Amino acid sequence: MKESAVKKIVVLTSGGDAPGMNAALRAVVRTASHYKIECYGVREGFNGLINDDFTKMGPRSVKNIITEGGTILKSARSLEFKTAAGRKKAFENCQKHGIDGMVCIGGDGTFRGAKVFNEEFGIKTIGVPGTIDNDIFGTDNTIGYDTALNTAMEAIDKIRDTATSHNRIFFVEVMGRDAGFIALNSGLATGAIGILIPEKKDSIEELFATFERAEKAGKASSIVVVAEGEKLGSIYDIAKATQTGFPSYDIRVAVLGHIQRGGSPSCADRVLASRLGYGAVIGLMDGKTNMMVGMKSNRMVYTAIDEAVKKHNEIDQDLLKISEILSI
Amino acid sequence: MKESAVKKIVVLTSGGDAPGMNAALRAVVRTASHYKIECYGVREGFNGLINDDFTKMGPRSVKNIITEGGTILKSARSLEFKTAAGRKKAFENCQKHGIDGMVCIGGDGTFRGAKVFNEEFGIKTIGVPGTIDNDIFGTDNTIGYDTALNTAMEAIDKIRDTATSHNRIFFVEVMGRDAGFIALNSGLATGAIGILIPEKKDSIEELFATFERAEKAGKASSIVVVAEGEKLGSIYDIAKATQTGFPSYDIRVAVLGHIQRGGSPSCADRVLASRLGYGAVIGLMDGKTNMMVGMKSNRMVYTAIDEAVKKHNEIDQDLLKISEILSI
Amino acid sequence: MKESAVKKIVVLTSGGDAPGMNAALRAVVRTASHYKIECYGVREGFNGLINDDFTKMGPRSVKNIITEGGTILKSARSLEFKTAAGRKKAFENCQKHGIDGMVCIGGDGTFRGAKVFNEEFGIKTIGVPGTIDNDIFGTDNTIGYDTALNTAMEAIDKIRDTATSHNRIFFVEVMGRDAGFIALNSGLATGAIGILIPEKKDSIEELFATFERAEKAGKASSIVVVAEGEKLGSIYDIAKATQTGFPSYDIRVAVLGHIQRGGSPSCADRVLASRLGYGAVIGLMDGKTNMMVGMKSNRMVYTAIDEAVKKHNEIDQDLLKISEILSI
Amino acid sequence: MKESAVKKIVVLTSGGDAPGMNAALRAVVRTASHYKIECYGVREGFNGLINDDFTKMGPRSVKNIITEGGTILKSARSLEFKTAAGRKKAFENCQKHGIDGMVCIGGDGTFRGAKVFNEEFGIKTIGVPGTIDNDIFGTDNTIGYDTALNTAMEAIDKIRDTATSHNRIFFVEVMGRDAGFIALNSGLATGAIGILIPEKKDSIEELFATFERAEKAGKASSIVVVAEGEKLGSIYDIAKATQTGFPSYDIRVAVLGHIQRGGSPSCADRVLASRLGYGAVIGLMDGKTNMMVGMKSNRMVYTAIDEAVKKHNEIDQDLLKISEILSI
Repeated sequence: MKESAVKKIVVLTSGGDAPGMNAALRAVVRTASHYKIECYGVREGFNGLINDDFTKMGPRSVKNIITEGGTILKSARSLEFKTAAGRKKAFENCQKHGIDGMVCIGGDGTFRGAKVFNEEFGIKTIGVPGTIDNDIFGTDNTIGYDTALNTAMEAIDKIRDTATSHNRIFFVEVMGRDAGFIALNSGLATGAIGILIPEKKDSIEELFATFERAEKAGKASSIVVVAEGEKLGSIYDIAKATQTGFPSYDIRVAVLGHIQRGGSPSCADRVLASRLGYGAVIGLMDGKTNMMVGMKSNRMVYTAIDEAVKKHNEIDQDLLKISEILSI
Repeated sequence: MKESAVKKIVVLTSGGDAPGMNAALRAVVRTASHYKIECYGVREGFNGLINDDFTKMGPRSVKNIITEGGTILKSARSLEFKTAAGRKKAFENCQKHGIDGMVCIGGDGTFRGAKVFNEEFGIKTIGVPGTIDNDIFGTDNTIGYDTALNTAMEAIDKIRDTATSHNRIFFVEVMGRDAGFIALNSGLATGAIGILIPEKKDSIEELFATFERAEKAGKASSIVVVAEGEKLGSIYDIAKATQTGFPSYDIRVAVLGHIQRGGSPSCADRVLASRLGYGAVIGLMDGKTNMMVGMKSNRMVYTAIDEAVKKHNEIDQDLLKISEILSI
Repeated sequence: MKESAVKKIVVLTSGGDAPGMNAALRAVVRTASHYKIECYGVREGFNGLINDDFTKMGPRSVKNIITEGGTILKSARSLEFKTAAGRKKAFENCQKHGIDGMVCIGGDGTFRGAKVFNEEFGIKTIGVPGTIDNDIFGTDNTIGYDTALNTAMEAIDKIRDTATSHNRIFFVEVMGRDAGFIALNSGLATGAIGILIPEKKDSIEELFATFERAEKAGKASSIVVVAEGEKLGSIYDIAKATQTGFPSYDIRVAVLGHIQRGGSPSCADRVLASRLGYGAVIGLMDGKTNMMVGMKSNRMVYTAIDEAVKKHNEIDQDLLKISEILSI
Repeated sequence: MKESAVKKIVVLTSGGDAPGMNAALRAVVRTASHYKIECYGVREGFNGLINDDFTKMGPRSVKNIITEGGTILKSARSLEFKTAAGRKKAFENCQKHGIDGMVCIGGDGTFRGAKVFNEEFGIKTIGVPGTIDNDIFGTDNTIGYDTALNTAMEAIDKIRDTATSHNRIFFVEVMGRDAGFIALNSGLATGAIGILIPEKKDSIEELFATFERAEKAGKASSIVVVAEGEKLGSIYDIAKATQTGFPSYDIRVAVLGHIQRGGSPSCADRVLASRLGYGAVIGLMDGKTNMMVGMKSNRMVYTAIDEAVKKHNEIDQDLLKISEILSI
């Protein structure tokens, strides 16, 4: 094996937390240790770089965390890192510790920060896509997405029990400010009659037509899944409009909220996170920089960070059609 | 065995649905069948009595439902049954079918309705306590309560993952309009630093003192569990007041909502529901009426409906103290 | 409050591990801390007393463990503690540390050891019933039992899916060497047509009659739940005999095994463990010794260890009858 | 839209059952209904074709089954369908009902049967990969695999709790007669120190070296995951050899067994099954035959059945290395 391009790396988790971040962190730390690369954990995202919150990590530091949700390094959104002064401080701390490589686990915002930092100061950087939103280009799935899907699905399954018992209509809000992945897939998986997502132009007329179709099909209770970022209006507005349109309906709103960010990661997420954490370190050793590591069709792929933040993982419009046909 | 006091019974589920109602229903139907008593299922609670919505049920009608949340008979709150005219219609339908016994699965409101009906028309009635709220006198636990506790606890466990990762304070609302059982027990089980329930006089000063104590103990994130019926104000008001008192806190509100009513019942709920459904039929056969069947210390007990609706299952004030000591 | 009868206590977990032991441990440590009593954790049960494996514990030592299965103190069965020499060594270590109270979390065997030790050396002792087997007298439920029930039930629910798809007969072994609690309750909760437990005299003829009854009722697949300690023979023997009796049956055996000991404790187990851990320390402070703390009908009760180990929690024979009626 | 190439189709599930088969079935039935194609369900795999066990299915026939494990059509392995006479009978029944298309949900064996049948009688056929083993070429994942992985992982997580509490070594057998996918991925996800699979030449010496490495790393308890089809010997033989090699180890064997086939499907499996069921019908309408429908990198792909049965989904040898590095 040729000599590693890095000797001392940092790893951090940034942005909204996602189940599997710990598994990725464990993979980074243990892979580094295996190849005799020093590894420091940085707490609270980029803030830790600025505040010199570095801790040396070895295989035992990440013991048992593969099963745990959240991130033991904690996460944060850093305003200071958006300033040149903040990034300079961060770099000086990296210099002080002799850091020559960095693994950033997070989403879009994280990658953008990492890219600017890399361009300014040249520390080699690899991004690992960790976000429940699944909107990152360059990987089939992001870390945490599969777990969030299962959490949302199980919650909606429970809501259906009570919806059916009382002949009720439930509007269920799931996470996704800009992306409808969770809404679309959890809605399809739970037989929701309607799925409202930001990527599609929805109208109240169309929604009403859906309810009429459901009624005709003999459905006495129904679920509509709404992404947080739906543009038609807030879930409460949509529920209110529906109540006005169908005064006899017994309508309820459920906002799933932060349960979608927690929980022990699913097997798929633990495996994905393990592979990507490993791939990030291997990539750095190999001299790669300003890349994101992802999995496509079970194979590891590296994408330029630039491309990963410019493009988006697009939802499959076909899925909406399938969902409509299957939820008859 | 002496002759049964009833020959033809109805069974219905009424009020808010609870996991395990199906298991209770299955037990009623199969026990009746075993003892050659005819059994009719009535749909949508007392409404079904009024609307003559009776279906004959046999062992196969309740196949596999022991694992299912909700109630296949559906449930409803009936306004018409609160009128003398409505109850008369209900009685006439019972008479038409030759009904001489009734099993009502539900909560307080259900039992009150059943009691009036029994007093007016004399059909033998046994109540089965099915409600997630656990506020019924005459039984250690009500059907559905244990499942709801586990659902709430698992949700709060997930919320803790993200609370810890971001150093956040979460206010989590759980069900319980009049009773704090779910809040108290799920809060204790998840190490919540504060638990606000309607049975206790809470104050914002006391809550603030709790936060100060938590800070001193080095806690960077915390959970406060709030019962729906908390009298200090809505969870949003309480969160807002806390934000004013502690401007640096990163505060979030999570309302668990209807997921607490659904889901496959826990083992304890399936067993409880099976025993109580069996006990209800045995009680009717034995000539009992106007009684509720419950379990205390693993033994079946019958309580006068009158007593069951007048008294309430009281929360153990000791538990609040224990919770405070343990969540340090 | 009057002065505490103890100043320095040890806590240990012994025997087979059970979910909720950590929650009990947390309660012991934090209650002791609250009342300014020093508390030492002893590793690997009584072995730790002998090997002087004491660690001082404070509120932070038990952080977050309420959600975790197993026991952070580890557990073991100690042969040496059964000898007078071993117990003398254990006492000398206690003396060295100035220990005047002891909380033992475990089952029958643990309590017997604790009793002898107390009689020989006088250190005040309270037992906390922690075992999935639920066979301890003096408490409605033991710690871990409810979680084990849910684990067994969920496993059997899954097995039923495949049994039904292939018209198969499954014999499922659950834990319980001397006690049929898990078998009886998980069997009832999953609609098993047969339940074989050590507390009842079973016969192969009776089992065959059950299969014939199931066939007549039109069942194409069935589950029989067998306790580990069933006296009719091993589950493999029983399955083989059934295959001989019913050559056309497609029979499978499933042994659930150690999954029943693990997992995050259920809400009921966390609450029970918290209350009993608290109660153990309060009891010691109050001067109690040679007692076991339990919960009956939601109230804390203390039973002489002597009685707890001589008597057994008896299964309710009625439950077998109910199970038979309901699994038609 | 051009005219459909089929008018009347059958759908069947065959081989070992897998969670998500019901979701696939629902998708086939509802897509067919949507496009006005008649659809018949055939019970117990190819046996149902031979025994003329056809039932007309509409959207309501598959109500709510998306959440259910197993297959409501039941599954079986058919010996008679392997004979020319059996297949002739099957074809005559198809002819009688006017069947011109067939969707077969199952694994390798199912596809082989379908292919021969198609070649002999020309009924258009599409295969849908439904098996927990994931060894089918032409799709990233097979239906049921993701759910089985989560089931295995959760069971092993529970076993780890008790392994850790007692310093034990557990050998855990997971399903996979010819393929190590479940073993490899669940082992990686649970931090197993060893993973034994049929695709790799294992030796007892290598396994012993692993234990020695684990000891050196300070591990007091360990998990080794073994695929059913491991060639080194049965799990009991391997455990025995280990006991001989390391007499001081406290070793246990756990066979997870049929729980891996059941359970409500994961979100990923429900979505995959829904898409493939839809894709199967669309494919038939489009004139495709003798193809398998799969998903690669979130896109639908059709592969010749011939190729699907000849090639195999290969495990990624890299994963073994990653697992070894990460389980230090």
